[in-house]
Amino acid sequence: MSVEGMIQEMGKNAKAAARSLRNEGREKKDAALNLMCRKLMENEGHIREENARDVSAAQDRGLSAAMVDRLTLDRKTIYSMADALKEVAALPDPVGEVTGMWKRPNGLMVGRVRIPLGVVGFIYESRPNVTVDAASLCLKSGNAVILKGGSEAIHSNLALAEILAESLEESGLPKTAVQVVPTTDRDAVKILLGMEDDVDIIIPRGGEGLIRFVAENSRIPVLKHYKGVCHIYVDEFADLEMAYEVCFNAKVQRPGVCNAMETLLVHDAIAGDFLPSMAKRLETAGVDIRGCARTLSLLSDAKPADESDWYTEFLDLILAIRVVSSMDEALDHIDKYGSNHTEAIISRDYRRTQRFLAEVDSSVVLANASTRFNDGNQLGLGAEIGINTSKLHAYGPMGLEELTTTKFVVYGDGQIRT
Amino acid sequence: MSVEGMIQEMGKNAKAAARSLRNEGREKKDAALNLMCRKLMENEGHIREENARDVSAAQDRGLSAAMVDRLTLDRKTIYSMADALKEVAALPDPVGEVTGMWKRPNGLMVGRVRIPLGVVGFIYESRPNVTVDAASLCLKSGNAVILKGGSEAIHSNLALAEILAESLEESGLPKTAVQVVPTTDRDAVKILLGMEDDVDIIIPRGGEGLIRFVAENSRIPVLKHYKGVCHIYVDEFADLEMAYEVCFNAKVQRPGVCNAMETLLVHDAIAGDFLPSMAKRLETAGVDIRGCARTLSLLSDAKPADESDWYTEFLDLILAIRVVSSMDEALDHIDKYGSNHTEAIISRDYRRTQRFLAEVDSSVVLANASTRFNDGNQLGLGAEIGINTSKLHAYGPMGLEELTTTKFVVYGDGQIRT
Repeated sequence: MSVEGMIQEMGKNAKAAARSLRNEGREKKDAALNLMCRKLMENEGHIREENARDVSAAQDRGLSAAMVDRLTLDRKTIYSMADALKEVAALPDPVGEVTGMWKRPNGLMVGRVRIPLGVVGFIYESRPNVTVDAASLCLKSGNAVILKGGSEAIHSNLALAEILAESLEESGLPKTAVQVVPTTDRDAVKILLGMEDDVDIIIPRGGEGLIRFVAENSRIPVLKHYKGVCHIYVDEFADLEMAYEVCFNAKVQRPGVCNAMETLLVHDAIAGDFLPSMAKRLETAGVDIRGCARTLSLLSDAKPADESDWYTEFLDLILAIRVVSSMDEALDHIDKYGSNHTEAIISRDYRRTQRFLAEVDSSVVLANASTRFNDGNQLGLGAEIGINTSKLHAYGPMGLEELTTTKFVVYGDGQIRT
Repeated sequence: MSVEGMIQEMGKNAKAAARSLRNEGREKKDAALNLMCRKLMENEGHIREENARDVSAAQDRGLSAAMVDRLTLDRKTIYSMADALKEVAALPDPVGEVTGMWKRPNGLMVGRVRIPLGVVGFIYESRPNVTVDAASLCLKSGNAVILKGGSEAIHSNLALAEILAESLEESGLPKTAVQVVPTTDRDAVKILLGMEDDVDIIIPRGGEGLIRFVAENSRIPVLKHYKGVCHIYVDEFADLEMAYEVCFNAKVQRPGVCNAMETLLVHDAIAGDFLPSMAKRLETAGVDIRGCARTLSLLSDAKPADESDWYTEFLDLILAIRVVSSMDEALDHIDKYGSNHTEAIISRDYRRTQRFLAEVDSSVVLANASTRFNDGNQLGLGAEIGINTSKLHAYGPMGLEELTTTKFVVYGDGQIRT
């Protein structure tokens, strides 16, 4: 069969699975998730064998040690995938929730009921555990999913997919509710992105290049973020001790992720007190600083920042620093250079924190806390399938509820429109 | 200036207006809406003069009498636009609502706050009153809007736009919060659809051709429905008197709209009792019937339906009728041929109505009421800017709340991630 025919058939099968899943209660879905958990652990040996094929191919192709490391599955990573399945099974089922119901003057009872989206197309270039994570969140929320992972993880992903499909079938659910695209052919993604009759939503996860490719080629709505250029604004009235801790955490704790701080904005009134000590602390962690002219006058070791640095998601131990003469200047900077991802203010001033929280338009805005909290688990959504910085459907981290929509149900007694 | 330069400048101006609107309370927005209302009435003469230019051009181009009629503004239509503005001013402001707030184990207070989407691109080929309707809903919900109407209404739309912009300015709001594209150049739409940095959402309203063009060319998320192939299923246990009334209303009361019934599904057990009288009644209104074989055996005047009829939104006094031998067959028919718009069941049976409401996947599903109720006003949303049958963001009729999204705000006290 051609790649096109194969992907189209996967789409039809996913749609059929979604139809049967959409009215399934949580019992069977949870049973399938728990069975997946057991089977992952039971099949550890087989998974590791298949994973070893990917790892050796990656080594042959000369992938970096860090990438090979991300790709490698061992007992610990497999057991932690299995644990995550159990955790998803234990989460509440968002499907069927009545989010509101009201009576119209003509007696119609109108309600909104939460339903699955249908078929999710998930395109990623991440570690193989994302295959299991994404599949479990889609299943729990009543959606079928087509997973297109990176070519470097194809054997691992197929081995995992087989276990997931088996578990679905043994739990009385359609096994095509979770499908991994079994080819590394690059056309597969383009074909998937054109199947608007069968796929309801596309979620890409990976580098900016992948996301842009998906957004530009998709006929299906895409939930995505291109990048996270996250800011912390240290206000004139900041608790400087808190600012040191929070800024250090936001930059250093895991610099390669989208919610790490990339630009630090510091009010001029405290810049002289704050920046030298902050820089010293950041330098102990190996952070490379690129500053505005005022920053350079305070930090002799810093390099000058150029215009493009303010737009850059470094994903590394690099930090851009700008001294601002007012909070307005900080807000303007965020508005111009920000990516609507995550912004934080450090301040003891009540009105300024309230103003920052109200005026900054980003998906997550924090007062006196690290940007690293933009994460579905950390914010209390129970899980996360990704972060969306377009304002449609779900702004910010997406959990189970964000994989659903609501339909209107209307109870009448013969009402007609006049 | 080139068309491209002009549209891009409108985009930048809209974005700037959106930034200042997004934190505006309801006072100024409502004042602007009420001022627009007064100014529309005061400028009736000017609006009618400009409208007359469109009407005479339409007559010269040989547009149908019905289309010229839809285009024509008289005192009544202008005053009713003005009334609608006052009604929108009186609606609650969705912006700023906290839809939820909770405390995390580490003490973070996490909340979700309703915010405007930003900039709406509204592309339509409807009557000039839609210009005012759409502008008022966008403004009330804190969004800036770029309106691209049909070329046949250009002078009317520009006259209305001028009044709206004046009212904004006199109320202390940015006048570029409402802009009408001042050209009939067809490139303008394509340019608008590519401005993903400045426009957050596209809402098209018009015929299927316009909608498909927009969906195919947009880089910006589109909220839309292609068509409404709406079904009523008259169950074996229907109250036949109610079924006559509801089906007649759904087909005949306004056949040219998206929530009119296009296909009637009738359970075989009551088809012999029900269909001849129903058909007689529909024929008094001039409805042309296209039936399945079983229907034809009961209705001698009906024409045979072909496969394509089941997919067709007739938007006319035409009705496709199929007799089904079970409710499952009705559900399968809806699943195959439906457009996820509006479906209704007529039945006295409790379990069957509950099952229909649960299993049918459409944006509005009704028991014992006319499909014509799929409308934001009728369902109690207060207003409607359109109906969306893709599952993203808002499924079904979209009111003010559907022109907003939520962001996360987080109150911390120095929390860092470990």
